[in-house]
Amino acid sequence: MSGRLISFEGGEGAGKSSVIGAVESLLVERHIEFVRVREPGGTALGERVRSILLTPGEAPLSAATELLLMFASRAQLLDEVVRPALARGCWVLADRFTDASFAYQGGGRGLDSAWIAELERRVVGRRPDLSLLLDVQVDIGLQRARGRGGEADRIERESIEFFERVRAAYRALAAEQPERWTVLDAGQPMDAVASAAREAVAGRIDLWSSAE
Amino acid sequence: MSGRLISFEGGEGAGKSSVIGAVESLLVERHIEFVRVREPGGTALGERVRSILLTPGEAPLSAATELLLMFASRAQLLDEVVRPALARGCWVLADRFTDASFAYQGGGRGLDSAWIAELERRVVGRRPDLSLLLDVQVDIGLQRARGRGGEADRIERESIEFFERVRAAYRALAAEQPERWTVLDAGQPMDAVASAAREAVAGRIDLWSSAE
Ligand SMILES: Nc1ncnc2c1ncn2[C@@H]1O[C@H](COP(=O)(O)OP(=O)(O)O)[C@@H](O)[C@H]1O
Ligand SMILES: Nc1ncnc2c1ncn2[C@@H]1O[C@H](COP(=O)(O)OP(=O)(O)O)[C@@H](O)[C@H]1O
Ligand SMILES: [Mg+2]
Ligand SMILES: [Mg+2]
Repeated sequence: MSGRLISFEGGEGAGKSSVIGAVESLLVERHIEFVRVREPGGTALGERVRSILLTPGEAPLSAATELLLMFASRAQLLDEVVRPALARGCWVLADRFTDASFAYQGGGRGLDSAWIAELERRVVGRRPDLSLLLDVQVDIGLQRARGRGGEADRIERESIEFFERVRAAYRALAAEQPERWTVLDAGQPMDAVASAAREAVAGRIDLWSSAE
Repeated sequence: MSGRLISFEGGEGAGKSSVIGAVESLLVERHIEFVRVREPGGTALGERVRSILLTPGEAPLSAATELLLMFASRAQLLDEVVRPALARGCWVLADRFTDASFAYQGGGRGLDSAWIAELERRVVGRRPDLSLLLDVQVDIGLQRARGRGGEADRIERESIEFFERVRAAYRALAAEQPERWTVLDAGQPMDAVASAAREAVAGRIDLWSSAE
């Protein structure tokens, strides 16, 4: 049996990284082998690309450059980690995946989504089996992200309007493919969001195993 | 008047970097303002990407990753340097440009050239006004490149067969658009190659100024 790919999406401070922890415990309880990856990054090359993408530089990064670097990191992650894992039946929990490019470089930066779809087709070739959208008001998310401390990275320095476009793009993606997405109200306390995420994944585990 | 874009293409050790020097002197004599760029690289971001591309790593770089990194560097170079220079009438001498992706990632790695053409259309949007192909036997070029000393980079470690495919792809590109390309026999002594390159560029300068 091939493994399952589950992605966690949402804006800054929505709680993606926190919620994945809760889903990891669930998979451990169910004796399901998994790997956890993050984007951009997840490979030696990807982490170098991540540092280029997130470090504020002197010259502004062109939107096309940002998109191409994201997909370069993703292509390497797929080859080195995701495809081999899925092929041996291991599940993959992805802290962001292709939808983040539709939301950030498409919605946020205004790049043509037909181009992003073409890159998805050429480079990725598949969608996640389940995507969780952690949806929260932009200002609440940003406040949480800032609460983590540290300098704001290049993306976190964007305007409220930018993050509103990202949020709207994520909601539109979820509305287009409701069978793939579960939208969680990430404005609730962390415990409630984590339970909702566990529940969504548990539901799919049962569904997928009954289908086999 | 908009500036002109001239690219210098060819395999390892063909003499691109040496020949650009001769063309630079010609432009100085003719009082033509120019900038010289190289790929991958030419911007702060591009040089970071260059180091990822050329440093041999532990895991092999996926062919798609290589292509996307090349175009990421190119997109940034176009935004930061090439387009602003051309717009103010300054010429650009490019030590490799988009054709290198058709030759190396297309011919060498076997990636679909329709995909590369799509990236060219989306990211670059224009071809050089003149491209010089420095064509030389693969073994002679490699011997020269090794003569420069230093460790072989990730690309220079490829097989003879790889470089034969690159050479064939360059020759095919030149044959498809003979009006844009001048093919130079780069197996000759450097002085002869440099004179031929100067002559080719001088011919275009006269042609372009008579057309104005
Ligand atoms: N539902 C929540 N309620 C309150 N705080 C939260 C919630 N979700 C996450 N946080 C906190 O917000 C910060 C950002 O969460 P994180 O999981 O890193 O978000 P993301 O990975 O989506 O950017 C962390 O300090 C986290 O503890
Ligand atoms: N036509 C030539 N004959 C002999 N040596 C050459 C010739 N062209 C270049 N070289 C030498 O070969 C080496 C590689 O040349 P270079 O201009 O760096 O090539 P490229 O930039 O195409 O890789 C340099 O040491 C250069 O001096
Ligand atoms: Mg996170
Ligand atoms: Mg050179």
